[in-house]
Amino acid sequence: MAGLFITLEGPDGMGKTTVLKQLLPLLAQKTAQPVIETREPGGSQIAEQIRQVLLDVNNTKMDDRTEALLFAAARRQHLVEVVLPALAADKIVLSDRFVDSSVAYQGGGREIGEQAVYDLNMFATAGLTPDLTLLLDGPVEAGLARIQKFRQDQSDRLDQETLAFHQRVRTSYLHLAAEFPKRVIKIDAMQPLEQVVADCLQQVQNHLPETFQRS
Amino acid sequence: MAGLFITLEGPDGMGKTTVLKQLLPLLAQKTAQPVIETREPGGSQIAEQIRQVLLDVNNTKMDDRTEALLFAAARRQHLVEVVLPALAADKIVLSDRFVDSSVAYQGGGREIGEQAVYDLNMFATAGLTPDLTLLLDGPVEAGLARIQKFRQDQSDRLDQETLAFHQRVRTSYLHLAAEFPKRVIKIDAMQPLEQVVADCLQQVQNHLPETFQRS
Repeated sequence: MAGLFITLEGPDGMGKTTVLKQLLPLLAQKTAQPVIETREPGGSQIAEQIRQVLLDVNNTKMDDRTEALLFAAARRQHLVEVVLPALAADKIVLSDRFVDSSVAYQGGGREIGEQAVYDLNMFATAGLTPDLTLLLDGPVEAGLARIQKFRQDQSDRLDQETLAFHQRVRTSYLHLAAEFPKRVIKIDAMQPLEQVVADCLQQVQNHLPETFQRS
Repeated sequence: MAGLFITLEGPDGMGKTTVLKQLLPLLAQKTAQPVIETREPGGSQIAEQIRQVLLDVNNTKMDDRTEALLFAAARRQHLVEVVLPALAADKIVLSDRFVDSSVAYQGGGREIGEQAVYDLNMFATAGLTPDLTLLLDGPVEAGLARIQKFRQDQSDRLDQETLAFHQRVRTSYLHLAAEFPKRVIKIDAMQPLEQVVADCLQQVQNHLPETFQRS
């Protein structure tokens, strides 16, 4: 695989989407390679259909393992249709969430088990892992407070969760950072936004192959 | 689990559905327990939604692993909503296809790998396996010839497959019978229908707990 695959991860409200938006143009100044931003199920019609089943608020009977399987299915399809072609074309792909989200949310949060959900997702990705994962980390309460503020008139099944759930999610993310210290880099999301973005940019630069750097 | 969980398996055209229909009333004469017939995604709205994504003829870009994950997701939901409650209520459940179908069709037929698809499905079932699996076996050509005859004006994605595909499916089923000889019983599907049904009935009777038999 010739490109570079970078994922942004973290509990709800840690600012992933905002950071990603600011990171993108800064990174484009540092590399001559095309940089694309994506998030599941973006750009895949099949993954979008799966996502609709997941987010259907009438599907209150959905079992936790069914949910994990559907996320893995949507991930697989998005990977095949969007991520792999971009990497094959030497692009830098920045993805808003990937496998680690399922390990943290379904494995830890919903208590299916981190290892079981990781193994399931290795089936989905056929073993592909990101080159670098930026884990935006901070106290769960701070993240949930941000969500309350910004999304108070929105709601889907996944947001109707408890503080305890989100604390399990954070704990699982920290387990992943401990288990894969070279791939998963923890970033303090409680710093001022510019510093969070600067830290992320620095980590990405550290992982840029020499041929990707602007001379 | 207090009930009895029996699955019917086999390559396309081996007569599973016909056998199941004839087996049901005969079995009801041999046992005092309620007997129900089911097939995925029957009776689960969520599983039905997943099935619609699988069978959408416009989804020509669907990756083989995505397909396996979606079958596993529909299976999980059908299991939780339909099969497990029936077994908990001491019923005998006859299911038209289950995990072995995915191992044979996705693992063998589509060549994802039998073990990988088996492991995926153990995630989906949380380890539950049938008490008895009746494998209707016969030459692939004979099965496909029956399908041509009966379904020639129907088509979905799964029927647009080659003879080689179906031969791989049969081979995988035979691997399962060899690996799980106590659970998976091979029935010669080329016998006259009455004999096939009689063989199936005999196998089920052999597996009936004493308390399930009519006195």
